[in-house]
Amino acid sequence: MKIVLIGAGNVGFHLGLAFFEKGENVIQVFSRKKSKALGLAKKIDSKYTTSLSRINKNADLYIIAVHDDAIGEVTEKLVQAGIKEKLIVHTSGATPQSLLSSAKATRYGIFYPLQSFSLERYPNFTDIPICVDAKRNDDLLLLKKLAIKISSKVYHVTDENRAILHVAAVFVNNFSNHLFHIGSKIVDKSALPFEILLPLIIETVNKLNAGTPKEMQTGPAKRADLDTINKHLEFLKDYPEYSEVYKVMTKGIENQ
Amino acid sequence: MKIVLIGAGNVGFHLGLAFFEKGENVIQVFSRKKSKALGLAKKIDSKYTTSLSRINKNADLYIIAVHDDAIGEVTEKLVQAGIKEKLIVHTSGATPQSLLSSAKATRYGIFYPLQSFSLERYPNFTDIPICVDAKRNDDLLLLKKLAIKISSKVYHVTDENRAILHVAAVFVNNFSNHLFHIGSKIVDKSALPFEILLPLIIETVNKLNAGTPKEMQTGPAKRADLDTINKHLEFLKDYPEYSEVYKVMTKGIENQ
Repeated sequence: MKIVLIGAGNVGFHLGLAFFEKGENVIQVFSRKKSKALGLAKKIDSKYTTSLSRINKNADLYIIAVHDDAIGEVTEKLVQAGIKEKLIVHTSGATPQSLLSSAKATRYGIFYPLQSFSLERYPNFTDIPICVDAKRNDDLLLLKKLAIKISSKVYHVTDENRAILHVAAVFVNNFSNHLFHIGSKIVDKSALPFEILLPLIIETVNKLNAGTPKEMQTGPAKRADLDTINKHLEFLKDYPEYSEVYKVMTKGIENQ
Repeated sequence: MKIVLIGAGNVGFHLGLAFFEKGENVIQVFSRKKSKALGLAKKIDSKYTTSLSRINKNADLYIIAVHDDAIGEVTEKLVQAGIKEKLIVHTSGATPQSLLSSAKATRYGIFYPLQSFSLERYPNFTDIPICVDAKRNDDLLLLKKLAIKISSKVYHVTDENRAILHVAAVFVNNFSNHLFHIGSKIVDKSALPFEILLPLIIETVNKLNAGTPKEMQTGPAKRADLDTINKHLEFLKDYPEYSEVYKVMTKGIENQ
């Protein structure tokens, strides 16, 4: 299968590498920034372009991995460039397929890897769930076949369920990282390093293998230990924002 | 060193096992519940009692691993039983040493393993930070020597810093677990299993090895993506509690 990768940011970069490692043929990489397009193209033995009007028209699949708010515009330009009859997918968790159809794509779908990518970190792609969907059944099958080559966890996920997943992902990824940030700022008030909290954080996640989060819940809120909760709130009185998080989360745990 | 372990709950149980594995001599286990006292005593080749008045008076160290609100009373009973001159420590993150002194202990301190224990899970004790402190310097040295036998991460932590650590631990452990709970309830609205989120959760934690939580922050709040935030809030409008968490955390990330 010949693939054109549109976007060489975090998602495009890691998808490109994963395809290349499994012998898939990325024939062209697009990025507006030459350094990004060229950098990725070199790594995966591909051509590159910085102009959507020069997109290769002979690919089987066009994967749009750009910012959510640019997906519509990029799709329109692809269609204008004459690739209306080809399969066009995007990698966004939060964007419905209808955006591709209103941009006049006729064969379209989703190829959404459920992971938080950064350029510096190379996660094991085999473990990353890939959520696929497509307007046409034959295209869905094609996307599943491709996804299975780079991941052992491939799910057919509708627009509605993908939107749900994306909200859940924000809670477990973005928001828990923010809690780690608050933890680090609080520990900064002591003479101790943030690293002292890492074994506890790792165990919090490892426990998810032993039961549901609700079953694994511990702490003062869980055991309604008001003495400790009040001590903590007293400590936090100079940090109104952290105090607000503490109260909201404590109430949530009490109501689990 | 001869140790008496008072309490056979999550902390007492795992401490007892860790001491036993490293050849330390726990000569007696106390629990009000015979099944717990006997169960742990058997595992670590120790005696047991269910009565504080029958505590062995010949130990070098008495470790109190009971609920925070029982520490004072238990200490008083130990002193009444005639072990006033011996070193008495507790394992609580949230309780000051002064509680031991007001219960008339004369040699006292802290032996606080910074971890969330459950009976079903056996964490690797070597990785668990142990925070020690004592009124007397010779006792502090003794506690450090003992801690080093079961953990590679031993810290001298004052009451003040331990209180700070305990607040931070609630954020990174209890509260992030609650976010995992919310994530699981949201995913329940789809046809997908909670497991689909696990690789993302694991990567969130692994990223802490690459930089500070602030450096690793991603997501709609971080990039001020109001379209996505509003879509999420629209989805959450039937879940006022989750919506409140979403708003508080989003505001916090915007202010990082």
